[in-house]
Amino acid sequence: MMARVEATKVPSEQPGWDVFVDWMGVIRDLEGLSELLEWDQETAMPPGGAEGRSHVAGTVAALLHRELVRDDIGDILEALPDGQHVDDDERAMVRQARRDRGRALRVPEDLARAESELASRCTSVWRDARDAGDYAMFAAALRPLVAVKRQIAHALAGGGDPYDAFLEEFEPGARSSELTLLFDDLCARLAPIVRAASMHDPEPLPDDHWAEGGQAELARSIATMLGFDLDAGAIGISAHPFTSMHHAGDVRFSTTIDPKNPTTNVLVVLHEAGHAIYEQGLPQRHARTSLYAHPSMGVHESQSRFYEMHIGCTDTFWHRLEPELGRLFPDQLARCDVDRIAATTRRVQPGALRLEADEVTYNLHIAVRFRLEARLIRGELEVDDLPAAWSDEMQALLGVRPEGDRDGVLQDIHWAVGMFGYFPTYTLGNIYAAQLRLAMERELGPLDDLLQRGDFMAIRGFMRERIHSHGRRYSAKELMEAATGEPLSADALVAHLERRYLPT
Amino acid sequence: MMARVEATKVPSEQPGWDVFVDWMGVIRDLEGLSELLEWDQETAMPPGGAEGRSHVAGTVAALLHRELVRDDIGDILEALPDGQHVDDDERAMVRQARRDRGRALRVPEDLARAESELASRCTSVWRDARDAGDYAMFAAALRPLVAVKRQIAHALAGGGDPYDAFLEEFEPGARSSELTLLFDDLCARLAPIVRAASMHDPEPLPDDHWAEGGQAELARSIATMLGFDLDAGAIGISAHPFTSMHHAGDVRFSTTIDPKNPTTNVLVVLHEAGHAIYEQGLPQRHARTSLYAHPSMGVHESQSRFYEMHIGCTDTFWHRLEPELGRLFPDQLARCDVDRIAATTRRVQPGALRLEADEVTYNLHIAVRFRLEARLIRGELEVDDLPAAWSDEMQALLGVRPEGDRDGVLQDIHWAVGMFGYFPTYTLGNIYAAQLRLAMERELGPLDDLLQRGDFMAIRGFMRERIHSHGRRYSAKELMEAATGEPLSADALVAHLERRYLPT
Repeated sequence: MMARVEATKVPSEQPGWDVFVDWMGVIRDLEGLSELLEWDQETAMPPGGAEGRSHVAGTVAALLHRELVRDDIGDILEALPDGQHVDDDERAMVRQARRDRGRALRVPEDLARAESELASRCTSVWRDARDAGDYAMFAAALRPLVAVKRQIAHALAGGGDPYDAFLEEFEPGARSSELTLLFDDLCARLAPIVRAASMHDPEPLPDDHWAEGGQAELARSIATMLGFDLDAGAIGISAHPFTSMHHAGDVRFSTTIDPKNPTTNVLVVLHEAGHAIYEQGLPQRHARTSLYAHPSMGVHESQSRFYEMHIGCTDTFWHRLEPELGRLFPDQLARCDVDRIAATTRRVQPGALRLEADEVTYNLHIAVRFRLEARLIRGELEVDDLPAAWSDEMQALLGVRPEGDRDGVLQDIHWAVGMFGYFPTYTLGNIYAAQLRLAMERELGPLDDLLQRGDFMAIRGFMRERIHSHGRRYSAKELMEAATGEPLSADALVAHLERRYLPT
Repeated sequence: MMARVEATKVPSEQPGWDVFVDWMGVIRDLEGLSELLEWDQETAMPPGGAEGRSHVAGTVAALLHRELVRDDIGDILEALPDGQHVDDDERAMVRQARRDRGRALRVPEDLARAESELASRCTSVWRDARDAGDYAMFAAALRPLVAVKRQIAHALAGGGDPYDAFLEEFEPGARSSELTLLFDDLCARLAPIVRAASMHDPEPLPDDHWAEGGQAELARSIATMLGFDLDAGAIGISAHPFTSMHHAGDVRFSTTIDPKNPTTNVLVVLHEAGHAIYEQGLPQRHARTSLYAHPSMGVHESQSRFYEMHIGCTDTFWHRLEPELGRLFPDQLARCDVDRIAATTRRVQPGALRLEADEVTYNLHIAVRFRLEARLIRGELEVDDLPAAWSDEMQALLGVRPEGDRDGVLQDIHWAVGMFGYFPTYTLGNIYAAQLRLAMERELGPLDDLLQRGDFMAIRGFMRERIHSHGRRYSAKELMEAATGEPLSADALVAHLERRYLPT
């Protein structure tokens, strides 16, 4: 107590604060560098570079780890005050730094480097294995990665649930015991919605060709319309879409283009632009600090899923898009009007592929992955047994068995890049998005009216104020409760889906 | 002496050798990362990323510096043997490591970081300043960079010529006192060639449009024809062409396309492919060691200048190119045959721009820059006085005054990225290239016959064996003397130019 009372100076006047600030800058630079390496690998690197790149990625990971565990930073962090006389932002920086450093201290540098190198290699193998539908090829690269991830999980968990240690990385505060209950409950409440909605199958799009060039232009138009700043960002094309945050002023996302169907690209752009607009809205004054980030991936996904589902799957949005679509694809639009296109975005039908899943069954896909990866990390399931287990879980939750591993366990990049504990954040994102929508409508009126007016700046403004501008200052729980006025609950999501898909 | 006699074990069995090898790998990774950051900045980064990117580049430079000066590596390097019982490659690795570490030890980390950050920022400013022809804008960013570069030069020189300290970075062993004599002599011998050659002005190309897409395809065709491996490399487009070596299996170069004139792109591709083929030919077994590099930039430029001048400026090469040119640009070729195009590549005419200079006056452009940058680093010339000094030197050596700074001191990126001491290596490259050509012709017969047969693999094979495959095992002097059988001399270059440009 005495120490706190005596700490009347603000941290910026404390000895070591400058070193601490420089250190945060280096950490952020290295994190951004990792993302840039991935961006380059997916969009520009020649195939022969895979082996060499895995070493470079490993070096960056090792240097990041070495920075995190620096002894002098430990001493400085211990000496810094965190009592009442301290600026809130600065207190949050110290708290986050202690947390990140504490996690890093539990993972030896050689494990961190091995993880990064194995993940980089596994990502390259995954691409070939997926194209060939060859699970054995992928398993050979995934096995050593999972072995290292288990070691890391145990080192982090310190006797607790090893899977929770990875959840903590992406959704600080989440516990698999609670998520298991949440998913079991959600799956049960989704079942009748899936049954009802899948009885009305919208007419599929006619066979047509939507040229890649025009779709790339459409991607830019949509991103700009939503408020993504192309002077501080870029859009690429890759097999698996993703958003990449390199540093202030450089946020990029990639899209995937299907020449037979424009909705893939449009919904991917809405999703990734949701992520990217979030990154562009982080507090600039805190660039190169630990606050220039998001509190959890669930919060991040709330932004992408809000844009994708609550905007992209509405007739009103597609009507807003009609002039631009008509300019780029006049013939195609003459053969298929926007109402018919929009209706296909609300097609609910259990299928094998997550990325093609509708917003209802999507959560069932996530449940499958959540169950499998938790068992895999705990050592209750082996890499060689994944395809069979995948098939069984898909059967149980979606009533669908994939025809081959390409449409099954090989479809996602996440495990190949070493991301375990990430999948549940997609469904948390869906839940948060539905809660945010309710809060937004309380403040700004019906979302459909905003879309009708094309007032995307009001939508972005709401998200800026409630979410983006706070960076990582608050926990996900604190931030979302303040933004929505409600505790975490699946009710808003279920209500949204029932409103959209159940017969009235 | 005793220590050497006792050193019967090879280094790979010495304590610390593993640590040393890992350290070399990290150094190479970070060097490649710096180049990747530059590549991305020039080809992909959004404009708003400049400020953030300068911090990231600074962090990578600081980490590289910190690695180089690591105490434990100093102890290990001291203990490692370098006597007769040691593998030649390993001895070279230790020698290079001691040299690189010694240089790094003389530059404090904060200076290294300041240099990198100022250079990254100055590069962005340079682009805008050049486009606007605004020297004052550029000078504001160049002034602090030059101030830091002078501090670094003095720290490195330890009482010697500060400019030589930078020469040592790009052309180890070179001294400005010798180069001054070489350039004075060369300028004198080039004067009559310029006078004679500039009297015959080849007919300029007719006004025409050579579409960017076709020229980009042509760039790929040429690179492939020369033996550049696109599975381990890529080609981009940027304002200032350059080659970027990221790691084994990932070498990229960029080209510049002028839609009014196909020779710009073709000669740039030959030049950069010369660099890139060199990088792809480095000894793969030494990847991630200090031998996976070049002994000097002069040697590197010998490869680019050989391809550009001795191949690209010949009628025979353009005849080899005729089928591909005809496929991509049938109408343009109908209006202007390849002989007429080829003749324009041998147009000798003093002008303001280095990148548009012919192979004779090119060396005069280099002499201008060499003289100015040496005085700038020595403090005999200030940033604010550069434009006037530039104009005077141009008048003295080329008889040309640039109309504005855009066509004068703002035309090159080198000083903006902090590269002082680099320019002279272009002319050293020209000299080496002419000497290599003589050696090649002694072994393989007339170069023109090789080009007539399209035997680019024989040319690449010669360079692979004599130059590429040795990496940085020998000094530039040792390597070039072994490859050409001659000591460094401008005679071969002058003889080549006289043969090509003087009336017979």
